[in-house]
Amino acid sequence: MVDKFHPKLNAPVDKQLMDTQGFECPRQLLEHIKEDLTPLLSLAQRPVVSANQFSREQLVQLARLAARYETQPQLITRPLTGKILVSAFYEPSTRTRLSFESAWHRLGGDIMSITDPASTGIAKGESLYDVGEMLNHYGDLVVLRDNDASAVYQMLESLRIPIINGGNGADEHPTQAMADIYALLKWRPSLCSAEVDPEQRIQIGIIGVPGRMRTVRSLLTFLSLFADAINEVLIISDEEQPFSEGQRETLEQAGLKLRVGTDLNKELPALDVVYINAIAWLGDNYEELGSRYRLDLSSPLKPDAIILHPLARGQELQRELDDTPHNWYFAQARGAVFMRMALLSSILKMFT
Amino acid sequence: MVDKFHPKLNAPVDKQLMDTQGFECPRQLLEHIKEDLTPLLSLAQRPVVSANQFSREQLVQLARLAARYETQPQLITRPLTGKILVSAFYEPSTRTRLSFESAWHRLGGDIMSITDPASTGIAKGESLYDVGEMLNHYGDLVVLRDNDASAVYQMLESLRIPIINGGNGADEHPTQAMADIYALLKWRPSLCSAEVDPEQRIQIGIIGVPGRMRTVRSLLTFLSLFADAINEVLIISDEEQPFSEGQRETLEQAGLKLRVGTDLNKELPALDVVYINAIAWLGDNYEELGSRYRLDLSSPLKPDAIILHPLARGQELQRELDDTPHNWYFAQARGAVFMRMALLSSILKMFT
Amino acid sequence: MVDKFHPKLNAPVDKQLMDTQGFECPRQLLEHIKEDLTPLLSLAQRPVVSANQFSREQLVQLARLAARYETQPQLITRPLTGKILVSAFYEPSTRTRLSFESAWHRLGGDIMSITDPASTGIAKGESLYDVGEMLNHYGDLVVLRDNDASAVYQMLESLRIPIINGGNGADEHPTQAMADIYALLKWRPSLCSAEVDPEQRIQIGIIGVPGRMRTVRSLLTFLSLFADAINEVLIISDEEQPFSEGQRETLEQAGLKLRVGTDLNKELPALDVVYINAIAWLGDNYEELGSRYRLDLSSPLKPDAIILHPLARGQELQRELDDTPHNWYFAQARGAVFMRMALLSSILKMFT
Repeated sequence: MVDKFHPKLNAPVDKQLMDTQGFECPRQLLEHIKEDLTPLLSLAQRPVVSANQFSREQLVQLARLAARYETQPQLITRPLTGKILVSAFYEPSTRTRLSFESAWHRLGGDIMSITDPASTGIAKGESLYDVGEMLNHYGDLVVLRDNDASAVYQMLESLRIPIINGGNGADEHPTQAMADIYALLKWRPSLCSAEVDPEQRIQIGIIGVPGRMRTVRSLLTFLSLFADAINEVLIISDEEQPFSEGQRETLEQAGLKLRVGTDLNKELPALDVVYINAIAWLGDNYEELGSRYRLDLSSPLKPDAIILHPLARGQELQRELDDTPHNWYFAQARGAVFMRMALLSSILKMFT
Repeated sequence: MVDKFHPKLNAPVDKQLMDTQGFECPRQLLEHIKEDLTPLLSLAQRPVVSANQFSREQLVQLARLAARYETQPQLITRPLTGKILVSAFYEPSTRTRLSFESAWHRLGGDIMSITDPASTGIAKGESLYDVGEMLNHYGDLVVLRDNDASAVYQMLESLRIPIINGGNGADEHPTQAMADIYALLKWRPSLCSAEVDPEQRIQIGIIGVPGRMRTVRSLLTFLSLFADAINEVLIISDEEQPFSEGQRETLEQAGLKLRVGTDLNKELPALDVVYINAIAWLGDNYEELGSRYRLDLSSPLKPDAIILHPLARGQELQRELDDTPHNWYFAQARGAVFMRMALLSSILKMFT
Repeated sequence: MVDKFHPKLNAPVDKQLMDTQGFECPRQLLEHIKEDLTPLLSLAQRPVVSANQFSREQLVQLARLAARYETQPQLITRPLTGKILVSAFYEPSTRTRLSFESAWHRLGGDIMSITDPASTGIAKGESLYDVGEMLNHYGDLVVLRDNDASAVYQMLESLRIPIINGGNGADEHPTQAMADIYALLKWRPSLCSAEVDPEQRIQIGIIGVPGRMRTVRSLLTFLSLFADAINEVLIISDEEQPFSEGQRETLEQAGLKLRVGTDLNKELPALDVVYINAIAWLGDNYEELGSRYRLDLSSPLKPDAIILHPLARGQELQRELDDTPHNWYFAQARGAVFMRMALLSSILKMFT
């Protein structure tokens, strides 16, 4: 039976944000980075498909712009007023879709959604080329999530408005990785510095499968831009081949030091950042890898280690960790909206 | 064959509202109630889950504010500009969803919808706790309809933005009951008075199952706040146990006089207000009770009796009654938008 | 494998519109037609259900208003601010729905969508009469697509806000035909003239089934308003009975000269305009007629013939024609948004 006199009904909702989600961290980040919109100007009217498109300076300035939005919730203007987003999610999603739609609404724009492939066009569907040609006249920007990894690239052929990859099969998810980087920079602003002290370098652990998780793939590319600030990235996976063909070599050539381990509890005590994900998309279905690796209060985490997870989570990340200082995954989700606002502002060259 | 020269195609649509839907009734209500926003200030940032949360003064002031909106269609400002509603309807609905979305749009806000559980997150779905934590950063208010009655209570655990119960299983539907009260007060403003003359007291009949219909459950709770204005509430039902456990006792303790009858046509001639509903939600399906009780032109209604129905209707309320003065169910649907505007304005403390 | 260094990722999207889609054509149309809003004033608050409702003057002024919108992308005001569109697509569609929603957003309005019949009301659904009565209070205009051709007419019985037919079964699709007329007038402004020179008259071919394709049905009605500008309309179809009962006679009585042919390649060399459609709705499914008739680079088109197609297309219109001057089907899709903006402005009598 439901409790009609539930204590939460008798008082205003508790607006108190957790420390990791308050204004202090983004404020510090603002102070730490000198504002320079120049790297962002080259993002104007550009598609965002792969993490490979970005430079370190662009990520740092996007993070700074996100921090400005995060510390200034009441925007002075609504710069995307009159602009239309086509929100095309052909694969189940709530987090990414709502995060993008929230960002677009906060900036004052309008949205048209396509969420159900069965309702698009004739039952058989038109070619992506024709869909792109149509969207040129109906919207100003497209966000696409599709379990066919090539769909977003196909649409580049006819699109004359920018498209953002919201997750393409097992390939990439660049804006999620941006949210991850934003969380890292808010936690440790010194990572932005041109030269990072050797003692300041961090040890990052990624529990997941780089070859088959789009969030991890994009994140590793971004981390390679900060290779000088990172001691080592440890991939914790018991797969025979955790990387896809050429992936490890490309990252190592960019300067990232990589290692693979299988024993989570043995590796945890040395990690400053623990990134965990348990969902891997395979074609048109997902694969849950949650049972083999698991973080909970008994995990031997370094006292000031932080945990990141793109969410949604299953058993791999236990709720008992939510109220500990390790929890940076909620801040990561919170920051995702501001990072997306920063990116959208830059692509449409409409800063508030 | 369709008639290409249909008379309705040759003239502007007939904007004439029925008397029950015009400006006269809300205008009278405005004159009858002295404005006092104090009771509404305590609604600021509060979740709305159960009818038990409200006082009589709050309902009266909400009705007054709704009447102000109804008589003033061109709002002077759009007070919810920049605010985002998360419209989460996990159970089929058009009326309640469109009514809320219309109210939110009229106030100038933006909306993000989740209507299909299959498209939310991974197919398995995240915990409601995690969904609440996410929505804190993506929106400013949530409206939730779910056939799991406990879902809205579960979300209170992590939500730090207000949530409104749009119907939770068979449990409650507080905003529908608010629309019902608004209709009653527009019809009989004297019901608001501090002291109601014994001769002014009304006889209300409810054709339905209080134990299993959420609209009836919430309405009875609200009616108990006006017990001094009501002679008797007659439940017309042929169920063995029309009430749920403790429901009748709680209402009678609040001062409401209740009786159960089974013979509709015998009871009708004494009723001032006839409320009818035939749809009862049972878990994930509905049960239609329409065949046993039915209102039509042959029903022995008191000449100035009014009929209320939350709609959608089936055979239990015949269309031939639509053009009679008994029809207050269309006014009830119309008023629902203004009552929701009043509630939303109060929760977000942004009055126009 | 996807190409991470795809050339299109390294530069801003190419905003270059094709000649047929640029500002020159609508600008010429503006100069060719003298502005006169009088014919549009009689559209205020009127439903739009059938092409039969329109006069030639109304189409010409709507086209002029559309051309004004097309050459003036940054609207000075957002005239539909505060107005709510109910976008009700009970039959699969993306083009028409997004085109209407884009038009409404450009004019500053808000939108509520119903796209999935299963989510409307109780699973059984309420009567269309009751849905219309509800929408009167929730929105300011309805666009309806339904595979039941009578649904839009049924809703006229209770609706007191305007409704636009977005395609009703196999019956009509007036706004698509408006987009077709707009494309024709942009291509050949002289067609608007009060008196068209006999040498200026055009030969139009329609590859389709007038009796069963709603786009063709509405278009033929509009073409009959320009009968003096048209030599002949040739229907290319190998059906026994391409027309529905009385359809041919009605059009011929309006002055349109019609002929039926079966040999596409024999007829093509004489056609100035080639309209092709291959999808016919039959009840709740579509029938694709694409294999028998087909346009490609080998088709013996007149050098300056133009091709129109409502899209989505299948094999009947080959992509190799896209980069030829025959391609007016992309311009047709582009113009559809502006023509709908013109119509919506007129119905709500809010011109920017």
